Amino acid sequence: MNAKFITIEGLEGAGKSNAQKIVCETLKAHGIDFITTREPGGTPIAETLRTLWKEGVDGETTTDKAEVLMMYAARTQLVETVIQPALASGKWVISDRHDLSSQAYQGGGRGLTELVETIGKAILGDFEPDLTIYLDLNPSIGLERAKGRGALDRIEQQHIDFFHRTRERYLVLTQNNPKAVIINAEQPIEKVSADIQQAVEKFLKFAIL
Amino acid sequence: MNAKFITIEGLEGAGKSNAQKIVCETLKAHGIDFITTREPGGTPIAETLRTLWKEGVDGETTTDKAEVLMMYAARTQLVETVIQPALASGKWVISDRHDLSSQAYQGGGRGLTELVETIGKAILGDFEPDLTIYLDLNPSIGLERAKGRGALDRIEQQHIDFFHRTRERYLVLTQNNPKAVIINAEQPIEKVSADIQQAVEKFLKFAIL
Repeated sequence: MNAKFITIEGLEGAGKSNAQKIVCETLKAHGIDFITTREPGGTPIAETLRTLWKEGVDGETTTDKAEVLMMYAARTQLVETVIQPALASGKWVISDRHDLSSQAYQGGGRGLTELVETIGKAILGDFEPDLTIYLDLNPSIGLERAKGRGALDRIEQQHIDFFHRTRERYLVLTQNNPKAVIINAEQPIEKVSADIQQAVEKFLKFAIL
Repeated sequence: MNAKFITIEGLEGAGKSNAQKIVCETLKAHGIDFITTREPGGTPIAETLRTLWKEGVDGETTTDKAEVLMMYAARTQLVETVIQPALASGKWVISDRHDLSSQAYQGGGRGLTELVETIGKAILGDFEPDLTIYLDLNPSIGLERAKGRGALDRIEQQHIDFFHRTRERYLVLTQNNPKAVIINAEQPIEKVSADIQQAVEKFLKFAIL
């Protein structure tokens, strides 16, 4: 069986860290060798782009278009130097966020759908995750959870409408996608974890065939 | 008369700094208010992207595709926050490099012509310089001059073939472009300066009409 690329997607406070833990445990139980990564980031250059985007410089923040380009710069750096080599060497890759985040946040949230699609296609071509686990929840619930964790970052400071647009785009892009699983992340964490484990087990059953 | 956007383009060692000086002096003599900038760079975020691209992080350098995206991130940040506001307020803008550099270096030099065109069009739309002064010379002459200035940077370390491909793309894109002037930068500096001054004077004559 070829190594697979699994991504975890969702709004702030949706429970991505827990989801990543469940995916990793499930793969381990099957003796599957994998690496984990995150976007934007995952290489020294991509992590530097993440910090530059989050913090800005001397009070200057990125424009929406520059944000899209920096996200894709970090992504292609990670895909070319980490993800594709890992998959080629037989290691599975589990990523906290990938391209769907740009389509949801910069596309849906910022209203740059067309620009994100054009750049995504030009940069990634046919490369896409084998399985996307999208943790869906009402943005206000997610933001309450995220606030509980401390200071809000650049994205978390957006107006609530931004997150509703982002969620809507997430749903449009996952609802009829056979490679995506939508998890109800408003459920108690035990139920969410069980749903994720079940989704991964089901994926493995078909992947191993 | 609307404020105009003038760019200076050419290979390493072609004499861009001198050309910028001549352009500025000529505009000053006509009482024209202007700002100068450079690419990649010109804003705190864009200058940080320039350094990140030039120096890399922890021994990691950008992939060719990440390089293209970082150049356009820096460019749109500069265009949106500096160049377009300056032009809108009536100030001319003189830039050391602009989009043609990406088309020549990343397009021609790195062989990513199609990717650069797609992203350039998606990001810049119809925005383009009113006058491009392209300083043309044989790459080996330019590199000899650049070497005389000290340590070679990331681009200057490329193989000579890279610069021949870059020059070829510069020529293709300027030869039949009515908004571009090709200056023979192999001539003695006094003749180069005179040619640049003459090109700007000619441009002003039509721009002022």
